[in-house]
Amino acid sequence: MGKNTVVDDVQNKQVIFKDYVNGNLQEDDLYISTSKIKLQVPQGSNAVLVKNLYLSCDPVMQFLMRKDEFLMSGYHYYVPGSPINGFGVAKVLDSGHPNFSEGDLVWGITSWEEYSLIQNPDKLYKIHHTDVPLSYYTGILSMPGITAYAGIFEVGSLKKGESVFISAASGAVGQLAGQFAKLLGCYVVGSAGSQEKVDLLKNKLGFDDAFNYKEELDLDAALKRYFPEGINFYFEQVGGKMLDAVLLNMKLHGRIAICGMISQYNLPHPEPLKNLLHIAFKRLTIKGFTHRDHHHLYPKLLKTVLPYIREHKVFYVEDIVEGLEKGPAALVGLFSGRNFGKQIVKVAGE
Amino acid sequence: MGKNTVVDDVQNKQVIFKDYVNGNLQEDDLYISTSKIKLQVPQGSNAVLVKNLYLSCDPVMQFLMRKDEFLMSGYHYYVPGSPINGFGVAKVLDSGHPNFSEGDLVWGITSWEEYSLIQNPDKLYKIHHTDVPLSYYTGILSMPGITAYAGIFEVGSLKKGESVFISAASGAVGQLAGQFAKLLGCYVVGSAGSQEKVDLLKNKLGFDDAFNYKEELDLDAALKRYFPEGINFYFEQVGGKMLDAVLLNMKLHGRIAICGMISQYNLPHPEPLKNLLHIAFKRLTIKGFTHRDHHHLYPKLLKTVLPYIREHKVFYVEDIVEGLEKGPAALVGLFSGRNFGKQIVKVAGE
Repeated sequence: MGKNTVVDDVQNKQVIFKDYVNGNLQEDDLYISTSKIKLQVPQGSNAVLVKNLYLSCDPVMQFLMRKDEFLMSGYHYYVPGSPINGFGVAKVLDSGHPNFSEGDLVWGITSWEEYSLIQNPDKLYKIHHTDVPLSYYTGILSMPGITAYAGIFEVGSLKKGESVFISAASGAVGQLAGQFAKLLGCYVVGSAGSQEKVDLLKNKLGFDDAFNYKEELDLDAALKRYFPEGINFYFEQVGGKMLDAVLLNMKLHGRIAICGMISQYNLPHPEPLKNLLHIAFKRLTIKGFTHRDHHHLYPKLLKTVLPYIREHKVFYVEDIVEGLEKGPAALVGLFSGRNFGKQIVKVAGE
Repeated sequence: MGKNTVVDDVQNKQVIFKDYVNGNLQEDDLYISTSKIKLQVPQGSNAVLVKNLYLSCDPVMQFLMRKDEFLMSGYHYYVPGSPINGFGVAKVLDSGHPNFSEGDLVWGITSWEEYSLIQNPDKLYKIHHTDVPLSYYTGILSMPGITAYAGIFEVGSLKKGESVFISAASGAVGQLAGQFAKLLGCYVVGSAGSQEKVDLLKNKLGFDDAFNYKEELDLDAALKRYFPEGINFYFEQVGGKMLDAVLLNMKLHGRIAICGMISQYNLPHPEPLKNLLHIAFKRLTIKGFTHRDHHHLYPKLLKTVLPYIREHKVFYVEDIVEGLEKGPAALVGLFSGRNFGKQIVKVAGE
């Protein structure tokens, strides 16, 4: 699309953020609206105009809708009346930026709408490998992939034979963390919220074992069943009761990597923990981490997982809903575990 | 005392453990009794017979009186009807062990009584430097010294200029941790439970600042006053509300070393924490530690602190009660912060 062509406005469906919420995010805190957009970058700008293909539903997004919450550095609250944003896969329709050209496929931060004018394309990454599903660039080849890779290979420094427990194990990050730990020769058990997810972990993703935490009256007893000698490494994503039970079952000098606590995000008060003292008694090391410190690992991630994906040695399970209209329900569904694998909204085909 | 001398029994006053307690330890869960002991090691034994001089009151001791509690590996519950035990300083009266001789001064695990027959002297250390107060071998030159040294120099790896917060700062370990952090050129603030303790920290122990947590309605606000730019390193000994407020005030990538949570030991339910999620958001590293993994540092501790003690560059504040009878009250007093500095029971002079 040449810079001097006159381009008409087109309809641009958007997922709009209504207003800051207290407590639980509800589907109707977001609404669908249609605005207009010119499919052209303003002259002289170094912005990029993209057509959004896939949008990623990530738990962190709801913090950007709650003004009462602590805001993580590097994040910005969503603006009422504007579309929400997050990770996604898009196709460049027009570019004023030297690094991007029309037709490029990219992943990175974009908005929940059909077309986005991205003023600052620094957070866009060009997609070079298209023999794998494009949607993977919201998951295994994107932020969740970096998170799982960093957690297992860098933060956890797992060693062969170690006992590894992974919560939210069938989710966007957990399913990869478990498969990575298996590649390293660990004994890996996961927890998930349905029998179907448990079956997935055991039968498809190669976990040594898995259990449905919703059916366990006593999480401590469940963990003791799978880890009679204790846990070396816990990949923590849920917090609350599960973390409390894990603390009871960690081995001396065990390690915990925490990248989220999704069970606690929407409670009026977090569940009280009884066993924090075990951190001292058992001399545990706990490391908080997010993908943000680990983007330098992205080339390593690609080099590691692309061959495994192609050889069907690593799988990535996605839960794709079609159409922006289904975005709000998909996003809210994360917090009740409605998704089966990585939750994605497909906005359009290429 | 020769092996073949016939020795009469002598009176041996003891602090006896009544029975396992639920919840708060009370003074009358212990009682004073007198038994008899022969001041001689049985022939052929490699035991050591000591006269106890100083006994150390340590928070960990109450866990050994609560059968409902998780037992730390390497510890044994106290036996009802028998004297409690813990760290102390003693003089060897008779020895069947090649490493110890009559007249040696030792520190290590002994019992709360006037004389102890120590069957396994492996946990006794000979005292070589007696130009400093002998009682220091229950504190700065013993387990609390090792804990503070390990926490600051090894676990925390503090760097010059870092912002350091220390809770229970006038206690057995805290007062040293603060002074060690000052030696490394850090900005050090401590919290304690009385104005007198705050004055001690600021005027005698060289803390940059200190506050009385009991007078702060809002611990978060208090920490923001002393750490407007956040905390690099927190030396954690109290847990509960204080830990929760600290999590709000940690810098990105901050570190927390946990060697205890004394405010939580005697609560029926630990205080719920709201801010654990900051571990992930701020990518904090939390390390539990106890002296038990760090006894190899003891020679380094001695080499570091003995000169500082002699040059009056490091101080150690002790709260010494005289007489075994006062032991139970002294021990129970730890949990209300009644002690002013390291709590010690003086049993006898040399």
